[in-house]
Amino acid sequence: MANSIWKSYPKLGKKLDLTTDFIHQEVKIQNLDISKMIVDLTSGGKMLRPAFFLLFSDFGTTKKTTQELIPLAASIEILHVATLIHDDVIDDSPLRRSRPTVHTKYGRRNAIYAGDYLFTLYFELISRNLQHNTDILLNALSMKKILVGELDQMLINFNVDATTDMYFKEISGKTAELFSLSAKMGAIVGDSSQEVIERCQNIGHDIGMAFQIIDDILDFSSTSQTGKPVHEDLKNGVYSLPYILGLEAKNQKLVAVLSKDHLSDEDDNVATQIVLDDGYLDQAKRIAREFTDRAVLEIEKLPKNHNQVILKNVVKKLSNRIK
Amino acid sequence: MANSIWKSYPKLGKKLDLTTDFIHQEVKIQNLDISKMIVDLTSGGKMLRPAFFLLFSDFGTTKKTTQELIPLAASIEILHVATLIHDDVIDDSPLRRSRPTVHTKYGRRNAIYAGDYLFTLYFELISRNLQHNTDILLNALSMKKILVGELDQMLINFNVDATTDMYFKEISGKTAELFSLSAKMGAIVGDSSQEVIERCQNIGHDIGMAFQIIDDILDFSSTSQTGKPVHEDLKNGVYSLPYILGLEAKNQKLVAVLSKDHLSDEDDNVATQIVLDDGYLDQAKRIAREFTDRAVLEIEKLPKNHNQVILKNVVKKLSNRIK
Repeated sequence: MANSIWKSYPKLGKKLDLTTDFIHQEVKIQNLDISKMIVDLTSGGKMLRPAFFLLFSDFGTTKKTTQELIPLAASIEILHVATLIHDDVIDDSPLRRSRPTVHTKYGRRNAIYAGDYLFTLYFELISRNLQHNTDILLNALSMKKILVGELDQMLINFNVDATTDMYFKEISGKTAELFSLSAKMGAIVGDSSQEVIERCQNIGHDIGMAFQIIDDILDFSSTSQTGKPVHEDLKNGVYSLPYILGLEAKNQKLVAVLSKDHLSDEDDNVATQIVLDDGYLDQAKRIAREFTDRAVLEIEKLPKNHNQVILKNVVKKLSNRIK
Repeated sequence: MANSIWKSYPKLGKKLDLTTDFIHQEVKIQNLDISKMIVDLTSGGKMLRPAFFLLFSDFGTTKKTTQELIPLAASIEILHVATLIHDDVIDDSPLRRSRPTVHTKYGRRNAIYAGDYLFTLYFELISRNLQHNTDILLNALSMKKILVGELDQMLINFNVDATTDMYFKEISGKTAELFSLSAKMGAIVGDSSQEVIERCQNIGHDIGMAFQIIDDILDFSSTSQTGKPVHEDLKNGVYSLPYILGLEAKNQKLVAVLSKDHLSDEDDNVATQIVLDDGYLDQAKRIAREFTDRAVLEIEKLPKNHNQVILKNVVKKLSNRIK
């Protein structure tokens, strides 16, 4: 069953269920461990990226059938899950949002193979279901941007000289690119005009930027069962936007704490308090809102269509996670 | 400079040098660690797969220019290096043929990213340089077979019931598929007839099978500086063909040793002696020869061309590694 965020949109929810079914069919391979693992990882998620792909496919001159759309919607989720799996192995953190990460649960070996297998499946679905080489190349280039974004992350890790420019460049690749690709591919397969394709791509990008920043803010505000803040990422030198804003402002207290070789729980508390007191969290929230507002404004400029309303509601719902 | 195995073929050597240069240009990315690592890994190798691609591209009706061939030759080597890097991380073995493995030298994090980045680059080069979607799909399906071959390896690991069928299926994907793809892609871009394309594909497959079996035999016969056999793979439950032949023959002494939870150096010696005494090594050599002979026979059936001689010489040179 599709995630509850789609309950007001049963038609879309149905298509997302079909997309999940399609993925599960595709990963029925002889290696049951890998097969089960991927089925597990692609069940019950929000399926945001395929949803955006489907929603944006409706603004052009051609109405593609569900059957034509599903493999491409699936390919996007598959690429997403592949990068997620490898990210978790690379970060080597045991938990993601208080839940065991993929490689902790299934072993590193399976996790690397599963990621590779999904990259391959993505490549297959793309080349099987897109008619123009230019569209296939566009996917390859997006995948490259995502990878480069992840590599850029290494330049920020443990770097107290990190700037918002570096951060925006990183998340623009790491997160926003796939949202942007989903929207653009939707517009392309729906035979939208070049102007609409570019608008969709930009909207996707802004939605993705907002999504990552909101994720950063949620991570910052998350607490363990004992009510204490848990900033696993911070201790691993992965700075989210609220910290980056403080570092860019050359906040000397924050720079001093984060320059330590090893961060204690007390250091974490001190850094948290600085971010709260000096307004960096509020500033991050304002930036997220700017991306969301621009996305909504641009959605309104799309050709008149019922999906505009859905898109705006979904974007607002995602941004309300931090209200 | 191209590897010494090409010294009798300076024209081919020159093209392989250009292929290496092309790869090094493509991986000039901001992340210098990854960039240097890939340059290192793609320098001085035999470049067998690109060489076969180039050699097989000459049997059709169209002579493609070097400039047209290089990016595709590079893409094949890039896919090869990507799988190699991830394999080493997955096996987690510190050494490959007495040299430190990629992740030991560069760190696991860099190794996973570098592999992913190379998969992406492969995908990009393929979609940028192949005109027909069917040829792109063919590459995607080959990549999938390679991955599935690697997954099949898990079914053999530590499995004393492993059979030669399982082994051939595994190496058919893991190793032979990429040789087969190189030959087939060469034939396709050279506009060969369907019959020649299929012949090239089969020749590539047989060369690849022989190559892997010979590698297995070399591994079996390798000794440390103190002259002792070093069977890292065996201790990790990775059985090469000489052992598989003994296991399939239900050699009870061999089954008993390999069924142990942990193999001591003495166990390794015992297993080695069984393989030698009971003729499994010789049997493996015969099988390698069969694949080589069939490849040579089929090369002779290709359209008359100077490259036939080169191909036969290279295949014999590779098979002479175990004489």
